Amino acid sequence: MSSAAIGITLIIRVETPNHPGAFGELASAVGDAGGVIGAVDVRSVTKTSATRDVTITVPSEQISSAVRTAIERLRGAKIVSASDSTFLAHLGGKIQIEPKVPVKTRADLSMVYTPGVARVSMAIAADPSKAFQLTIKRNTVAVVTDGTAVLGLGDIGPLGAAPVMEGKCMLFKKFADIDAWPICLDTKDVDEIVETVVRIAPIFGGVNLEDIAAPRCFEVERQLIEALDIPVMHDDQHGTAVVTLAALINAAAVVRKDLADMRIVVAGGTGAAGTATIKLLQLAGVGDIIASGRGGAINRSERYDRTHLTWLAQNTNRENRRGSLRDVLKGADAFIGVSGPGILEAADLQGMGRDPIVFAMANPTPEIMPEVAAPYVAVMATGRSDYPNQVNNVLSFPGIFRGALDCRARRITDNMKLAAARAIAGIVGEERSAEYIIPSVFDTRVMEAVSRAVTHAAVEDGVARRAIVVAEEDHAAALV
Amino acid sequence: MSSAAIGITLIIRVETPNHPGAFGELASAVGDAGGVIGAVDVRSVTKTSATRDVTITVPSEQISSAVRTAIERLRGAKIVSASDSTFLAHLGGKIQIEPKVPVKTRADLSMVYTPGVARVSMAIAADPSKAFQLTIKRNTVAVVTDGTAVLGLGDIGPLGAAPVMEGKCMLFKKFADIDAWPICLDTKDVDEIVETVVRIAPIFGGVNLEDIAAPRCFEVERQLIEALDIPVMHDDQHGTAVVTLAALINAAAVVRKDLADMRIVVAGGTGAAGTATIKLLQLAGVGDIIASGRGGAINRSERYDRTHLTWLAQNTNRENRRGSLRDVLKGADAFIGVSGPGILEAADLQGMGRDPIVFAMANPTPEIMPEVAAPYVAVMATGRSDYPNQVNNVLSFPGIFRGALDCRARRITDNMKLAAARAIAGIVGEERSAEYIIPSVFDTRVMEAVSRAVTHAAVEDGVARRAIVVAEEDHAAALV
Repeated sequence: MSSAAIGITLIIRVETPNHPGAFGELASAVGDAGGVIGAVDVRSVTKTSATRDVTITVPSEQISSAVRTAIERLRGAKIVSASDSTFLAHLGGKIQIEPKVPVKTRADLSMVYTPGVARVSMAIAADPSKAFQLTIKRNTVAVVTDGTAVLGLGDIGPLGAAPVMEGKCMLFKKFADIDAWPICLDTKDVDEIVETVVRIAPIFGGVNLEDIAAPRCFEVERQLIEALDIPVMHDDQHGTAVVTLAALINAAAVVRKDLADMRIVVAGGTGAAGTATIKLLQLAGVGDIIASGRGGAINRSERYDRTHLTWLAQNTNRENRRGSLRDVLKGADAFIGVSGPGILEAADLQGMGRDPIVFAMANPTPEIMPEVAAPYVAVMATGRSDYPNQVNNVLSFPGIFRGALDCRARRITDNMKLAAARAIAGIVGEERSAEYIIPSVFDTRVMEAVSRAVTHAAVEDGVARRAIVVAEEDHAAALV
Repeated sequence: MSSAAIGITLIIRVETPNHPGAFGELASAVGDAGGVIGAVDVRSVTKTSATRDVTITVPSEQISSAVRTAIERLRGAKIVSASDSTFLAHLGGKIQIEPKVPVKTRADLSMVYTPGVARVSMAIAADPSKAFQLTIKRNTVAVVTDGTAVLGLGDIGPLGAAPVMEGKCMLFKKFADIDAWPICLDTKDVDEIVETVVRIAPIFGGVNLEDIAAPRCFEVERQLIEALDIPVMHDDQHGTAVVTLAALINAAAVVRKDLADMRIVVAGGTGAAGTATIKLLQLAGVGDIIASGRGGAINRSERYDRTHLTWLAQNTNRENRRGSLRDVLKGADAFIGVSGPGILEAADLQGMGRDPIVFAMANPTPEIMPEVAAPYVAVMATGRSDYPNQVNNVLSFPGIFRGALDCRARRITDNMKLAAARAIAGIVGEERSAEYIIPSVFDTRVMEAVSRAVTHAAVEDGVARRAIVVAEEDHAAALV
């Protein structure tokens, strides 16, 4: 909808017969369909045909389709290829490097490079902790992927993942002023991923793991946390868990229930996001959680061959309920979906407890559409921006890393995640309602509140290397 | 000298006795020594002492020392620590990430991140070569080091090397508009370096190896060139070789000699830069080259345990001359030093052939100072900016990588390096003289000329994936 306001630019490469009037027919067809031709560039002309790149502005996706159809229907015309503003926005990539100090004069050059830089290098060699002051380390995060679980697209490889990683780096900058760099790994092996990240870690102040498939992601994260003294977080797990908990805190308050008294079913609970969400909800004091996977509820009457399923069986599902998602949803207080599109029907919700809470967060199509669920739920959230209550990681990871970097945390503890969730929930506070349990991603108060809460928790947990603010620190630390 | 114009800012943390007049004495001492106090920040005060951060502007390094000495001489005063503008310029590091497209509205977010980015990722997954259009790959270089041969400082580790790598990234941006990112490796093992770079390579369009010690650097470069289909270049080797050849071409023209007739002695010829320079000079047609290392001239009467020394013995020193640097310098047409400070005396130059050429490029102190060498040489060059004829890699690597990226070269061939050297020499052209054999690092014509020559050579050698200019390319490539 918002794209209508700005318009969509299409570039269509079209081949037409090379006879008088052929382009006129094309132009008429485009105009009749609602497009406005902005430019025409001839690519090649033969005796029988002409190929042109036609730049067309359209007001909406619908008109875009209509224009294409109109061209295809012209006799002899053929669309060779077509592009649009999304592709054009990605041309040449989405991030770049900027020097932070000028290099205009010989004096500048001597200061930032040889010979001046030698003294700075020696100071760090003598005391490596000075890298936090004298290099980019303190504000730098590696966004690491192996390209195996990219968005909903699955294993599309490191280069296919690159546009998503670049986008993530943009979000780090936009929302937390953090300099993040994409590391797209040409390996899917746990040990190779771990040793590669360890070897390139020196320049980074933190590691954001992204779009790595389960169960590999659990082991990669565990080993990296062990090996490195900088924060490592798999955002698909913990970013999601934090925002979900934030939304749940407010949703529970809206329906006046204590987390301790609630029974919550997590569909997709055996996946990366689901498992992390379950663990964080437990830490937050949720009374009973049931993980539902493809084979139904995880329970202690079955045996599982994967470590994290065994853990789930032993640590969730207080009453050892068995059966399908539908079975275990009966009487539950909340449904949290991090699974797939359309797995729920309205009838499934009717058996839930008083004032059901439903977070249908599968993207882009939720487990159940809000308009279908509406009559049966008290509070509804999705992962989408076009309904109220969008549960979006952008609310959590920028502030978590900002807070962790600010205090030079060695790692991200459970308390830091809990603090982040409570800070996000706190932004909504007493203004909460069924349609406002989570702040907007553009609410600038969120990052501030989360980072402060995370720093505070890091200091309490003893993982912070600094408790004082960076500006003050700098003044002292530049003194060598 | 240039720093005098801009002034140097010192911050000195000084402890003085806490009695009336103590700070006045300090201020007088600073003023008398030539410093101007800009600000005073109290850090701590006890009954007996006060600690302050005093910000002082001084016109030169000399006055800076004088100010410190004056403070130290005050009774009871103690300098706790001190900083200056070089350290301040490095605070928080020297590069940052900038988004290339705005992320202000929901529509922006949907285009550069989910859901819009999914179509872009799928297009690349279907055709990985599209990463050159739709990601940062085509303009991105990894600046890779293991921190083992940093400037003249030796093995100071990956974090000690970081300020130099960041500086290099700034130069890439400033001189060639290339987005370079520092990779500071926590390993010195050849195989580990190679496999790590291979695994992180997908997002990069090129790899600049930097400050890796010999002989490891030869093997690392060889294996990476073999393993990757993007250009890999160890700048300390080939960047130096290219600029040296450029300077030599003009120096030879000044003294009216043919390269084919020349005998050249390379001191430090067994090191990384020396070996690469020798190879490139040979390709350029230099008649006879002698590599001189710590044990004197490399020759075929001795046996060597390192591969590259054996190669040098078999492929250089046409007349199998033996002896010390001084011995083999007799009758030579040129001396090229990439070794250490002060290894030559004026007497050594007196036995050289007609119109000797001397490139004394050890940094910061040359093999022989220009004022000492002057009476005996026809053309003199150094690595320093405060004498004529500065031989500086900044003249070569930006244009080489710019040219290689522009044509999407799979690797950097010998012809590309030769073309780069000739292009640099060509900027000087007919204006050449004994004091002008190499252009200034700030001559903006250099990068353009080098990149064009490199692209041309890449196309000729069949290693270019594209021969057409990028802007035109983009238009077509965005069409999917």
